[in-house]
Amino acid sequence: MGLPVVTEVRIHVQDPSLSLDMEVDEGYHLDIPNVSGGSGHALIQAQGVYGAIRAMETLSMLGVQGPDAADPVILPHTPYRIIDRPRYPHRGLMLDTSRSYFPVSDLLRTLDAMAWSKLNVFHWHIIDSQSFPLASEVLPQLAQNGAYSPESIYTRKDVERVVAYARLRGIRVIPEFDAPGHTYIWSASFPDLITCPNVQPNWPDVSAEPPSGQLNLIKKESLELMQKLLSEQAQWFPDTYLHIGADEVNTKCYEQDTSIAAYLHRTGMTVVDLIHRWITQYQTIVGNLGKKVVAWEESVLEYGLTPPPKDTLIQVWKGAKNVGSVIEKGLRVLTSPSDYWYLDCGRGEWLAGPGGGTSWCDPFKDWMRIYSYDPLANLTNPSTHPQVMGGEVAMWSEMTDPVNLDTVVWPRASAAAEILWSGKTDLTGKVRSTAQALPRILALRRRMVRRGIRADMVQMEWCERNPGQCALYPWE
Amino acid sequence: MGLPVVTEVRIHVQDPSLSLDMEVDEGYHLDIPNVSGGSGHALIQAQGVYGAIRAMETLSMLGVQGPDAADPVILPHTPYRIIDRPRYPHRGLMLDTSRSYFPVSDLLRTLDAMAWSKLNVFHWHIIDSQSFPLASEVLPQLAQNGAYSPESIYTRKDVERVVAYARLRGIRVIPEFDAPGHTYIWSASFPDLITCPNVQPNWPDVSAEPPSGQLNLIKKESLELMQKLLSEQAQWFPDTYLHIGADEVNTKCYEQDTSIAAYLHRTGMTVVDLIHRWITQYQTIVGNLGKKVVAWEESVLEYGLTPPPKDTLIQVWKGAKNVGSVIEKGLRVLTSPSDYWYLDCGRGEWLAGPGGGTSWCDPFKDWMRIYSYDPLANLTNPSTHPQVMGGEVAMWSEMTDPVNLDTVVWPRASAAAEILWSGKTDLTGKVRSTAQALPRILALRRRMVRRGIRADMVQMEWCERNPGQCALYPWE
Repeated sequence: MGLPVVTEVRIHVQDPSLSLDMEVDEGYHLDIPNVSGGSGHALIQAQGVYGAIRAMETLSMLGVQGPDAADPVILPHTPYRIIDRPRYPHRGLMLDTSRSYFPVSDLLRTLDAMAWSKLNVFHWHIIDSQSFPLASEVLPQLAQNGAYSPESIYTRKDVERVVAYARLRGIRVIPEFDAPGHTYIWSASFPDLITCPNVQPNWPDVSAEPPSGQLNLIKKESLELMQKLLSEQAQWFPDTYLHIGADEVNTKCYEQDTSIAAYLHRTGMTVVDLIHRWITQYQTIVGNLGKKVVAWEESVLEYGLTPPPKDTLIQVWKGAKNVGSVIEKGLRVLTSPSDYWYLDCGRGEWLAGPGGGTSWCDPFKDWMRIYSYDPLANLTNPSTHPQVMGGEVAMWSEMTDPVNLDTVVWPRASAAAEILWSGKTDLTGKVRSTAQALPRILALRRRMVRRGIRADMVQMEWCERNPGQCALYPWE
Repeated sequence: MGLPVVTEVRIHVQDPSLSLDMEVDEGYHLDIPNVSGGSGHALIQAQGVYGAIRAMETLSMLGVQGPDAADPVILPHTPYRIIDRPRYPHRGLMLDTSRSYFPVSDLLRTLDAMAWSKLNVFHWHIIDSQSFPLASEVLPQLAQNGAYSPESIYTRKDVERVVAYARLRGIRVIPEFDAPGHTYIWSASFPDLITCPNVQPNWPDVSAEPPSGQLNLIKKESLELMQKLLSEQAQWFPDTYLHIGADEVNTKCYEQDTSIAAYLHRTGMTVVDLIHRWITQYQTIVGNLGKKVVAWEESVLEYGLTPPPKDTLIQVWKGAKNVGSVIEKGLRVLTSPSDYWYLDCGRGEWLAGPGGGTSWCDPFKDWMRIYSYDPLANLTNPSTHPQVMGGEVAMWSEMTDPVNLDTVVWPRASAAAEILWSGKTDLTGKVRSTAQALPRILALRRRMVRRGIRADMVQMEWCERNPGQCALYPWE
């Protein structure tokens, strides 16, 4: 009797012209005959190519391989008839390439691993206060003076390569041009446009972390700069959405600037008024470039960015409890709560100090903590659920660089990916448990390592060999 | 004008025959002339070869290399006249190769990195409850039935290779044969000798973690087995010391065994009496093999292993506060406090449960936390200080395997290494600060990565390029 294998996959795509956007149909049907007695043909049917791609990943997940790389992939438990589509249309991973630079090869490898988990948005937090790796051609000085080194840059070709590579895997690329905060490094090229640049040693007075520095909100040149940069970048990044940041704008940074203080005194405006006006104008620039806006939660919850266009996406990060606040404003939400989905938490303190110790968002979010989060948590009114468009795990790079990237991101990001694809509850309304997910994430981690991703450990080998025997009881 | 480089190192060793043991002289003199105007010769003088090895590492640490691998290593700030010797004779790293198996190549790479930090003891926690990778030749069934796979073993040749490789780097190898707890996997070969084997699902009643199982203390065969195994292993591992474990012996495991309960009833002994008797006999076996004993703190603090021979080393792990308790008994101490020096802490929970979350020894011990520990803390009587022989950082492998080994261990282990070599206070009695250590650990991490160790990040590149600007103030 032969091994239970699938020797051929037939794929039927109804409309090959479907373009990749948030509304794209990723559903599919996957039929696998009973192959227990030998080989057989699988059939995939999908509206578009992106559904077919997801079906192929499902097929890959169903396969079981022995411990040796040369072992065939067998398909136990056939037949299957799978009718599947994602619970949320936006399933993302955010990567910060400013605090640490990652070569393009790292980004491509990350996109591969994202596709294996059916993640479909690469939120590229490409610039920040620490370095400016984006080699704009209209403002070349920004990278020339702001990249960590001449090698630590992304050229137009690099961006196009990343976008194309992602698209082939059904992954959209949304770049973030975070402003007006998180812009210190722009001062290397435009010193007059940055307020409170690198205040030392009292940076905590004016910034969440060093180096401090924010775009000057009363100089019209700061918006003109954004206009110039984004007019170019709207071309480089074809996605419908563009992230404007608008997080962590420090009011004291502006208050301690004498010309801004005088301006506020003269006009009777508050700093928040100023931030509100500026980000509203920034939002308009992006809108006029034909893009929809993504912004961090402060834009609406603290700076009063209202009313933004209905198709704006507000990304919640300060805590799961804030999802409801954005929902109440009638806006659409992406969930990236730092208390569940921040991959950087709990790995110690990077700011030097006497005793070291804890990170700002302790403890470490292990895969079970990540898996325990429901993007719909506390939204008691089901009519608001459609406002939750999905979520993202966030990889801030204070303590992550190419050396440990894989280990910090994988397989934890995949735990969120499963919630985003399948929902926190199954079709019967039952909450998905870590008990059910454990064998899947163990298998996924093995598969990732075999495919060249240095994914972190989930459980020791004894636990893998003795399913269900490494648990805290009672456990369901 | 030439680059400031050293072109030659002259080494004078007084007694090339010095053998490697805890008392070996690791001191050295290192003289480097002023090479600012060009090249020069360095001179190393040492009592023995192991001092010369440490001097070479110091020389390597003084070198500064540009960002390109092809850049020469230059020596700024010459001349130097360094007179150096270690503060503590025992400076160790413990690695658990039972919960995860590590190929010999991982061990050799780890020994390299240890030498770069002047660590001099590789505490090989070679076996435990999860797997038995040691291919004993007198008891071959232990590995045949207990290794994760036929490939996941250490043969006699492997052990000899590790020991020889370590010796050339001035590193002693101390194997641990942990008993009577942590021995479940022996049941695969000797089922009659293991009490409470793999109790499920209520393993917490009888064990610190799954799988439960301890050597039966009333069967004489359990000691005969140790005698047989250690008679062989005392040959494989030439070091003067051998670690007997004796940690975490669960009393309930024995109490729930009907034959042991009957024995206790008949003899009027308590379980602790039984443990006391057994580990005392175990200690005698090891002593009769010509070895000195290392044991975990419970041996004396909980099971009353008194009076052990004066040269016994007691390894404290439950918390820094316990160092004093061992000192008070007049015993010699190794410090491995889990609240400072456990590398496995804070990386999430590996036991599956509903919410995941925290590890038993949260938070993560970052390099600053590790560096903040003084092995002499709270020992107010200076006359007891000589009882502290050193310490070890501990790498338990529930969540560490070859994929993430480097990242979890390095460069954090080096922070402890510096305290163990230099002491927590300098020659003037001033406490060494993280501010002073930061540039060294940043440089060390870069050097490790360049040499092929995937050491974890310490600070982001912006901080490295802007020394002193990523700190929490006030900070000294």
